[in-house]
Amino acid sequence: MSDRLWGGRFTEQPDESVDDFGSSISFDQLMADEDIEGSLAHVKMLEKTDILSSGDVKQIVAGLEGIQKDLHAGKVKFSKENEDIHMNIEKILTDRIGPVAGKLHTARSRNDQVATDFHLYLKRRLPKIIDEITTLQKTLVKMAEENVETIMPGYTHLQHAQPISYGHYLMAYYQMLKRDKERFEFNEKHTDMLPLGAAALAGTTFPIDRQYTAKELGFDEVYANSLDAVSDRDFALEFLSNCSILMMHLSRFCEEISMWVSYEFQYLEISDEYSTGSSIMPQKKNPDMAELIRGKTGRVYGDLMGLLATMKSLPLAYNKDLQEDKEGVFDAVKTVLPALKVFNGMIATLKVNKDKMRDSTKHDLSNATELADYLAAKGVPFRQAHGIVGKLVLNCIQTHRDLQDMSLKELQKASPVIQNDVYRELDPEVAVERRNSEGGTGFKQVRAQIERAKHELK
Amino acid sequence: MSDRLWGGRFTEQPDESVDDFGSSISFDQLMADEDIEGSLAHVKMLEKTDILSSGDVKQIVAGLEGIQKDLHAGKVKFSKENEDIHMNIEKILTDRIGPVAGKLHTARSRNDQVATDFHLYLKRRLPKIIDEITTLQKTLVKMAEENVETIMPGYTHLQHAQPISYGHYLMAYYQMLKRDKERFEFNEKHTDMLPLGAAALAGTTFPIDRQYTAKELGFDEVYANSLDAVSDRDFALEFLSNCSILMMHLSRFCEEISMWVSYEFQYLEISDEYSTGSSIMPQKKNPDMAELIRGKTGRVYGDLMGLLATMKSLPLAYNKDLQEDKEGVFDAVKTVLPALKVFNGMIATLKVNKDKMRDSTKHDLSNATELADYLAAKGVPFRQAHGIVGKLVLNCIQTHRDLQDMSLKELQKASPVIQNDVYRELDPEVAVERRNSEGGTGFKQVRAQIERAKHELK
Amino acid sequence: MSDRLWGGRFTEQPDESVDDFGSSISFDQLMADEDIEGSLAHVKMLEKTDILSSGDVKQIVAGLEGIQKDLHAGKVKFSKENEDIHMNIEKILTDRIGPVAGKLHTARSRNDQVATDFHLYLKRRLPKIIDEITTLQKTLVKMAEENVETIMPGYTHLQHAQPISYGHYLMAYYQMLKRDKERFEFNEKHTDMLPLGAAALAGTTFPIDRQYTAKELGFDEVYANSLDAVSDRDFALEFLSNCSILMMHLSRFCEEISMWVSYEFQYLEISDEYSTGSSIMPQKKNPDMAELIRGKTGRVYGDLMGLLATMKSLPLAYNKDLQEDKEGVFDAVKTVLPALKVFNGMIATLKVNKDKMRDSTKHDLSNATELADYLAAKGVPFRQAHGIVGKLVLNCIQTHRDLQDMSLKELQKASPVIQNDVYRELDPEVAVERRNSEGGTGFKQVRAQIERAKHELK
Amino acid sequence: MSDRLWGGRFTEQPDESVDDFGSSISFDQLMADEDIEGSLAHVKMLEKTDILSSGDVKQIVAGLEGIQKDLHAGKVKFSKENEDIHMNIEKILTDRIGPVAGKLHTARSRNDQVATDFHLYLKRRLPKIIDEITTLQKTLVKMAEENVETIMPGYTHLQHAQPISYGHYLMAYYQMLKRDKERFEFNEKHTDMLPLGAAALAGTTFPIDRQYTAKELGFDEVYANSLDAVSDRDFALEFLSNCSILMMHLSRFCEEISMWVSYEFQYLEISDEYSTGSSIMPQKKNPDMAELIRGKTGRVYGDLMGLLATMKSLPLAYNKDLQEDKEGVFDAVKTVLPALKVFNGMIATLKVNKDKMRDSTKHDLSNATELADYLAAKGVPFRQAHGIVGKLVLNCIQTHRDLQDMSLKELQKASPVIQNDVYRELDPEVAVERRNSEGGTGFKQVRAQIERAKHELK
Repeated sequence: MSDRLWGGRFTEQPDESVDDFGSSISFDQLMADEDIEGSLAHVKMLEKTDILSSGDVKQIVAGLEGIQKDLHAGKVKFSKENEDIHMNIEKILTDRIGPVAGKLHTARSRNDQVATDFHLYLKRRLPKIIDEITTLQKTLVKMAEENVETIMPGYTHLQHAQPISYGHYLMAYYQMLKRDKERFEFNEKHTDMLPLGAAALAGTTFPIDRQYTAKELGFDEVYANSLDAVSDRDFALEFLSNCSILMMHLSRFCEEISMWVSYEFQYLEISDEYSTGSSIMPQKKNPDMAELIRGKTGRVYGDLMGLLATMKSLPLAYNKDLQEDKEGVFDAVKTVLPALKVFNGMIATLKVNKDKMRDSTKHDLSNATELADYLAAKGVPFRQAHGIVGKLVLNCIQTHRDLQDMSLKELQKASPVIQNDVYRELDPEVAVERRNSEGGTGFKQVRAQIERAKHELK
Repeated sequence: MSDRLWGGRFTEQPDESVDDFGSSISFDQLMADEDIEGSLAHVKMLEKTDILSSGDVKQIVAGLEGIQKDLHAGKVKFSKENEDIHMNIEKILTDRIGPVAGKLHTARSRNDQVATDFHLYLKRRLPKIIDEITTLQKTLVKMAEENVETIMPGYTHLQHAQPISYGHYLMAYYQMLKRDKERFEFNEKHTDMLPLGAAALAGTTFPIDRQYTAKELGFDEVYANSLDAVSDRDFALEFLSNCSILMMHLSRFCEEISMWVSYEFQYLEISDEYSTGSSIMPQKKNPDMAELIRGKTGRVYGDLMGLLATMKSLPLAYNKDLQEDKEGVFDAVKTVLPALKVFNGMIATLKVNKDKMRDSTKHDLSNATELADYLAAKGVPFRQAHGIVGKLVLNCIQTHRDLQDMSLKELQKASPVIQNDVYRELDPEVAVERRNSEGGTGFKQVRAQIERAKHELK
Repeated sequence: MSDRLWGGRFTEQPDESVDDFGSSISFDQLMADEDIEGSLAHVKMLEKTDILSSGDVKQIVAGLEGIQKDLHAGKVKFSKENEDIHMNIEKILTDRIGPVAGKLHTARSRNDQVATDFHLYLKRRLPKIIDEITTLQKTLVKMAEENVETIMPGYTHLQHAQPISYGHYLMAYYQMLKRDKERFEFNEKHTDMLPLGAAALAGTTFPIDRQYTAKELGFDEVYANSLDAVSDRDFALEFLSNCSILMMHLSRFCEEISMWVSYEFQYLEISDEYSTGSSIMPQKKNPDMAELIRGKTGRVYGDLMGLLATMKSLPLAYNKDLQEDKEGVFDAVKTVLPALKVFNGMIATLKVNKDKMRDSTKHDLSNATELADYLAAKGVPFRQAHGIVGKLVLNCIQTHRDLQDMSLKELQKASPVIQNDVYRELDPEVAVERRNSEGGTGFKQVRAQIERAKHELK
Repeated sequence: MSDRLWGGRFTEQPDESVDDFGSSISFDQLMADEDIEGSLAHVKMLEKTDILSSGDVKQIVAGLEGIQKDLHAGKVKFSKENEDIHMNIEKILTDRIGPVAGKLHTARSRNDQVATDFHLYLKRRLPKIIDEITTLQKTLVKMAEENVETIMPGYTHLQHAQPISYGHYLMAYYQMLKRDKERFEFNEKHTDMLPLGAAALAGTTFPIDRQYTAKELGFDEVYANSLDAVSDRDFALEFLSNCSILMMHLSRFCEEISMWVSYEFQYLEISDEYSTGSSIMPQKKNPDMAELIRGKTGRVYGDLMGLLATMKSLPLAYNKDLQEDKEGVFDAVKTVLPALKVFNGMIATLKVNKDKMRDSTKHDLSNATELADYLAAKGVPFRQAHGIVGKLVLNCIQTHRDLQDMSLKELQKASPVIQNDVYRELDPEVAVERRNSEGGTGFKQVRAQIERAKHELK
């Protein structure tokens, strides 16, 4: 006969390979705290509703608190035969306080228990992620403030497009992170729902009080439908999707850092603390952290894709497939939190080579739009102006000159509306300063962005 | 020399394969309306800010409106040489009104233009999707109302777990759809942002008024940072993620329909209008629509994964890779909207075989939890009660009986606390009725859920 | 000054978060054996080519072998400060044998070293997976042999389509696994290539002998291009793709098992050893292993997607992103090997309910194709025959009868070519037996398949 | 009553939305040729086996050939009411030749028919892809030949690592493509299998000859199991996986092209034929094709992920979900073929800036490994040599010098074993030339690689 807590109707033990393969204790012990706190709230509710006597509850609470204490002291051992964190803790409790431990599982199933643990787990990690994002935003704002007037080439297609303010560039990432934060905040809505009380799938005949349990555990809401409560993993999918988008943003910045610290760009230098060397090439200083964050983006995508595939076509309510929900989420938490921290440290210690950035805008023909806009402002249809400047650019390339090197006569040959004032507008710094359309790279606009950001971060 | 609108500095034409491969007109013509409306708003703003004269603007507006009219009448031809919807329309405009058309592109780039079109496109589809979800929710609530007291087996692990109300089951999907709707509503936030005015990436020196354009086009906000404006695709990723989760929900229901119309279950029958036959087997009636919606879930996952992969590691600001943002989103819209419609029609016309459902709960031992709860309510620790019932179940299986077939004597031998009142609780209908914990399957609870839903749908 | 093995040019230590985040020793210690064996082969080659003296090599070999022995005895401790398995082992070697340890890294870089370890790791797991597949195929063939004449409904769209042999069904999975095996065998080709000697990326000026090292380590080939050698991960992607397809196959079988053990089907019963119970419902016996294998399919898909995303757009040669190649592959190995084992145990102990299967084919109208084929064989165009039988089926449904219940008169009214011999062909067993087209479900054909399989498995 | 070809047992027509959503004719018409050829082979087999009379077959053949001719002339119209290409063609045939057309579907189902079309479709595309890869390999070999002695920086972590031959770099891609080709060739094995004759799922009672049909259609093998034949999509998954890896390779090269044509690198210049301009910035010349190929990599990944997700957990045999198999594959073919072509054209017309490449290796300290190896060759343990050179490098950075700028005295202070011959080895060209380990970047080695490649391409 089976000795498992659920083994009454079974005549044989599980095969050992089944314990190895099916047991989740190796990873769900990460939720040991949440499991115990869920049990504590549950048993207090059972007392409050007179389902269990105060005497029984006292014993169970004392037992659970003892386990929790020992757990924090690293003195609790789990076994794979007891499959998961829930059965492990119930077993330890039984060993410690005897059969009364068996009353803990009244009006509860592992189905609603595991969902509760998982909600609780994520509910506690979301604010940490939001905090790390805020820290990073603050770093960006600080860096932006120091670099409002740092001129650098703005790129499209990785080609010099138009000169921009480096502060403006940094604030673009501020905006992405702002949306990331809003997504994680929205994520809290569907995380902050309590499944406990759904029991196996259908609720229970015991007169439980789910609002009480919710309050005890700090949940905003209880699930309105017990089937939904045990089979919903939307909050986890939202989380993985949000992490994927966040990592995508970081990957873009990392890609740029990787290029900008290269020999060819030399716009930035990473501090020694955030670089590593090569085992063979003594001169190497590698932007490992930027590359690793970029690389780990793929892994988080995989976590998302894995859970989406697992959830597809699952009939209600609980299926064992759902056990696969946790490792991907744990992995994403374990990836995203340090990625944010390391990224923040890395950029906070970057050395900016302002001269190199600025010099790089001087002979790159990226003031061509200025000339076209100059013509358009004087009434030449923009498309025609574009064509005129295109030809001047071709001339410059063929003669190895910049637009500002052309004589007024040459320019006027291309278009008689050009006057001497054109040269001022061709200066990269002037070009940046003048782009003061709302949200543009003009210094005033960048400063306004920074002010707004500071206000938002308060 | 190149004859392209951007061709001034080029000495040769693009290779034909480049036009074939790089041109997006084959799919972005879907945004022709949005492109024209974006141009109309832009040009009106240029007039309002005195960047263009009223005379010029009048001509351009008339030209654009003419194209729009012809477009709706199916009289506009696009060419791949003009690459995309933007260049095609500018070209047609030029053919119709001459060089003044070239003024339309003042203070604008294709980078902010395409982003604007895409935002506008999605901004208009989101409400349609939300409406279809609402329609589906209403159907579910109506069906639930008719089936509050329809008893069926509740499943976990696809095994009979506990009897439930079919109405309760239907309301579980109502809840999923409620979250889907909240996600699409949140999606509107980051869609309802106007990129126009960001120009290529850096804003413009022209004194444009982005708030005016936003108002004209009905946008809530303008992007605060021009680099972000042209390189952000978060709104599209949110959308694909939301579609993926929605399709996942539908796939679960479809999986169940596919099983429940099978010879073995016979819980449901799909109407002829939503079934198809076999080319070879004359008796077949296939739940094609359920299978197809389930199958198309994979495709939408693919759309999400594709865009996530494409966006990874892209340096700012615009890169041609971003042209790949649209087809996946178009595909998801084209999949999700009819999937919702067809799904709604299919379930609205389902025939429910109530007797079959109910009968299926009578001899399946799914009242075992009732017995365990009965014992627990009488003070037997639940874990012990579970063990006692487990052994009774084993006995039942070996003797081909149900728990209710056991004599009181037999039951009392297992536990002396059992009294004659136990038999009533073993009845599946009673079992369902009694599960009145909040969110449970008890009739009162299901009715309360339905009332709340009706209120939410108002 | 940095104390790292590569720290000469650095003036500061890595930040602690960098060690935590960047270090790979927590997972790449799984390749400790491969790392040491790679080093042993490398150093022997250095001796053979007179790059190192025999005395030095002797010391290094002895040191490495000592570490290996202690490793197997569980006596080696790794540290995250030494980043990875390579630096950890070099460090331990240095601690044990002094500066001569520093000669080991002559003509080698971690770039080619880690690639070598990883190739070696996979090279040794592929045969294990192939073996497990073979074991499973043998189980299937054995089961098929016992069930050639077990009649069951064949399904399309999860609707009864035509009766088939259960043995035939089992052999379908044999065929899938055959292709899986061929894929893993092909995978060996690109795994069995030695990167060692590529050094950092460009080869080395030392007169090394890569053929010698390859022979020592049992590799078939050496990489022909050093840049390719250190940046190629095709073998890992092939592996993850193959694992994904294999898991997909298992997921299909698991889905069917999950249905077939349900109350509604009752075709199969899983042994107690491969089932688990419920914490709340005493009667439950859940096909957990089938569900878990099905669920873990998503995880392996995620591993594949993660690496594909990580590899995209990486410039040559080595980038730190590549460190992300391993965990997904390790995870897939850790998933696929036990999944095959558990799956094999589970199906080998399945109880087949032959009567239930057979009975299920008797009143399901799945002999309709027989009748249509009967008509077609008598010269009625098949499409017309299909229509005639369709109408008879409709009549049967409306009158709650089977085709075999219709009188000859009724049948002849539908088509005069029908004779008394039709009834024999309507019998499900006869129907199965007669489908003797090549690869069909006819008993002779199934036996032939089994014979061929046995031959292939020899 | 339903007028569909399968409508006998139905009393109502499909809802219009069902036709819209479920019909596949909009995309499967791409396989019209394959469908007709499959039918021709099938009907000839039916004649050969005396299942149909020669007279009937003659009529059917003539009808099908007529349709094929009209199809090529663009004169055939399909309708969504007839759902798919199979039913459409049968309907047209019936309209043309009358009821005898109904004999075509004897001993066949759409299940084996669509699988046959799809196999045939891919069977014909694989050689085209293999050919395009070969063409690209030839271009690479040609370019490599011209650049054996073109010196450029070799990168790891996008940092200058060691100087290499540009020809060597090009040959790395040759090797990747070689593996791609091997994968597509292996893909042919599981594509070149004929499903026809499996009928719906179980084979047929008609005495068909599948070997004959296979021969007619040029298939190597017939599927050994009829259930497997109609439900297997391994060949499509292999294809999508292979395409994903191929695109990943191209994405890496494209990433490098995108960087190397940048203002900062200027190693390469793309020809005008393979570039495009900007709508706003007249000076821009964008490497659009490189970016687009890189971007489309994500899309192909999505195609793979979509089909994997769709196939997961599908019970045997055919399910409508499988209709989703085709669009992803069609999309991958439509992406990969032109991507290869355009990529080939783009690189074949690249202008290589050899001076810029070479100059870039002169003052980048990338000869540090040379010095370490020099020391190691003189007996200094490599790890110690690395440390010595690391400190020299630090000195160089602080004093803005290169290693070759240091006096012999300074060098000898760091290590007395250094002699005057060291300066020669510090020259980048000498460094490259000397890396003649097998597969290394030494000129001799690169030439040997090229020779072997030429031999392989013959």
